[in-house]
Amino acid sequence: MRNLDENTITEAVLARHAHAGDERLKTVVTSLVRHLHAFAREVNLSENEWEQGIRFLTDVGHITDDKRQEFILLSDTLGLSMLVTAMANRKPPGCTEATVFGPFFVEGAPAYRNGDDVSNGARGEPCFVSGTVKGADGEAVANARIEVWQADADGFYDVQHAGNDTHRARGVLHSLADGRYHFRSIVAEPYPIPHDGPVGRMLAALGRHPWRPAHLHFMITAPGYERLVTHVFREGDQYLDSDAVFGVRSSLVAQWKHHEAGTAPDGTSMTTPFSTLEFDFVLNRST
Amino acid sequence: MRNLDENTITEAVLARHAHAGDERLKTVVTSLVRHLHAFAREVNLSENEWEQGIRFLTDVGHITDDKRQEFILLSDTLGLSMLVTAMANRKPPGCTEATVFGPFFVEGAPAYRNGDDVSNGARGEPCFVSGTVKGADGEAVANARIEVWQADADGFYDVQHAGNDTHRARGVLHSLADGRYHFRSIVAEPYPIPHDGPVGRMLAALGRHPWRPAHLHFMITAPGYERLVTHVFREGDQYLDSDAVFGVRSSLVAQWKHHEAGTAPDGTSMTTPFSTLEFDFVLNRST
Ligand SMILES: [Fe+2]
Ligand SMILES: [Fe+2]
Repeated sequence: MRNLDENTITEAVLARHAHAGDERLKTVVTSLVRHLHAFAREVNLSENEWEQGIRFLTDVGHITDDKRQEFILLSDTLGLSMLVTAMANRKPPGCTEATVFGPFFVEGAPAYRNGDDVSNGARGEPCFVSGTVKGADGEAVANARIEVWQADADGFYDVQHAGNDTHRARGVLHSLADGRYHFRSIVAEPYPIPHDGPVGRMLAALGRHPWRPAHLHFMITAPGYERLVTHVFREGDQYLDSDAVFGVRSSLVAQWKHHEAGTAPDGTSMTTPFSTLEFDFVLNRST
Repeated sequence: MRNLDENTITEAVLARHAHAGDERLKTVVTSLVRHLHAFAREVNLSENEWEQGIRFLTDVGHITDDKRQEFILLSDTLGLSMLVTAMANRKPPGCTEATVFGPFFVEGAPAYRNGDDVSNGARGEPCFVSGTVKGADGEAVANARIEVWQADADGFYDVQHAGNDTHRARGVLHSLADGRYHFRSIVAEPYPIPHDGPVGRMLAALGRHPWRPAHLHFMITAPGYERLVTHVFREGDQYLDSDAVFGVRSSLVAQWKHHEAGTAPDGTSMTTPFSTLEFDFVLNRST
C-alpha cells in the first residue's frame, strides 16, 4: 500500500472496500471509481484542471438550495438524467414514453377537480387540456392521480418567482370513471433552464444554448400501473431538436390548437383567443 | 435528436459540443460524459440511486465553506487526488516524491527564520526539524521557499479550531546558503479527516476508517526547480498502510527520534522530552 503509483492506485482504492456491508453500494462505487480514474488517465487531467473541477462543483453546491437544484441541472445537461430515465422505463410499444423529471417539481401542489383552472393566476394564453388515461390493453384507468406542472408565459415556474409562495400552473387531479381528464391552464412556452450559475457558464463554454422546447410536465400514478413521469411537447417549437436536457421524444410531441374567442371545449365562453391540447396517456402495468 | 434512447444519448450529448470554442475543454468533457454514461449503464443505475447521488452531492456542497472543502475530501478519499498528483509529478529517480495537497493549506502563513518555533503555541511535544534542500545533481538549493503545515497533538489543524484566527503549526521559511533549513515545531500525530459530514458517512458505509498517518506537509519552491508538494510521514504509525487518502510513499517515511530532556540540536536547553526529525528534499529541475 505504501508505493502506490498512477497505475496501481485504482486497485488499491477498490481493495479498501473489501469489507463494505452493502454489496450494491460496493458495486456502484467500484464502477464509479474505475470510470473516474479512467477519465483522469485518459485526458491526463492536470492539477490545475482538477482545481477548476473542484471549484466548479463547489459553485454548483453553493447555488443549490430548496428552490434551485444545480446538481440536477448538471445531470440533465450532461444527458445523465435522460439516460437513467430511459434505463428505468423500458416499456412495451404503445405505452407512453417517460422523460426527465426536471428540477421544478415541488411537493404539495394543490388539488383540483376536472374542469378547474390550475393556472391559478399564472400569466399566459388560456389553454384547455384534455385526454384519457388508459392501460396497455386499452382499458380505461379511472381515478388515476394526475399531477401537472408547467412554466408561465415568461418561461418561469412559480418557484422561480422571487418571494412567491403561491402554487401556480401546477396541480393534482384524478381521471374520471371512463379514464378521461380535463383541466384549464395556460399555453406552455419555451424557456431557458436557469443559466446564471455554473451550469449556465458550462453550457456557454461548450457553445450550447440553455433552452428547452415548450412542454407540460405530467406525473401519473394508479394502482397496478407503473408510475409515469413525462412531458408533452409542443409541435413546431424551435428547440425540439436541441433540448438543453435531451428530453424530447417524438411520441410526446403534440399539437396545441389555437382558437379565436368563442366557446371552449368545456362550454366556457371565452372573450379572448385560447388554445386546446388533447393528449392520451397509456400506462404500463406494474409487475 | 428526437428519438434518443439509452443507446444513442451519449453520442447526441457529444454532438452538441461540436462548436465548443476550447478544444481542451471539449476533450475533457467528451471523456467525462463517456465515462459518466458508461458508469450509469454498467451498474444500471436506478432512479432512486440517482436521487441518492444528487442528495449526496448536495450535502457535500452545503457543508463546504472557506474552512472546509468536502469536495477535496471526496476526491482524496476516492484516490482521484493522488492519481492526479502522481500523473503531474513524474520525476526522475532520486527526486523527492510528491503527494496530495490536502484540504488544510491556507494562504498567508506567517514568515519565520531558521531556528524559529513555527508551532506558535499549538499543543504537542516539541520537535526539532532539519535537513537540506538539494537539486537532482546534488547541488545545494539556497533560499528555497519552504512552507510547512501540520496538525497538533489533538489531530487538528489551526483552521479546524472553531473561532481561531491565529496561524499555528504552519509557516514559511527559506533554506540557507548551503541548502540547510531547521525549525522547531511539534510532533505530528495521526488524525482522522473530518468525518462528521457526507464523506464520513460514505467511508463508514464502505467499511473504511477516516484516519491519516502522522505527517508534516511541505511545499517547496525555488527558481529553476519544479514546485514540490509533499508530506513527511512518521515511521511506525499504525495507519501507514491504510491512509484514508492514499498519500503514503515509502520514500517519504522518516524516523522521528525521541529524546529525554537535555540539549536540543540547535543548542536549546530543553527541560521536557522532545523529538527530532531530519529530512532532505531533492527538487527536480523545471523544464
Ligand atoms: Fe420543465
Ligand atoms: Fe494533513
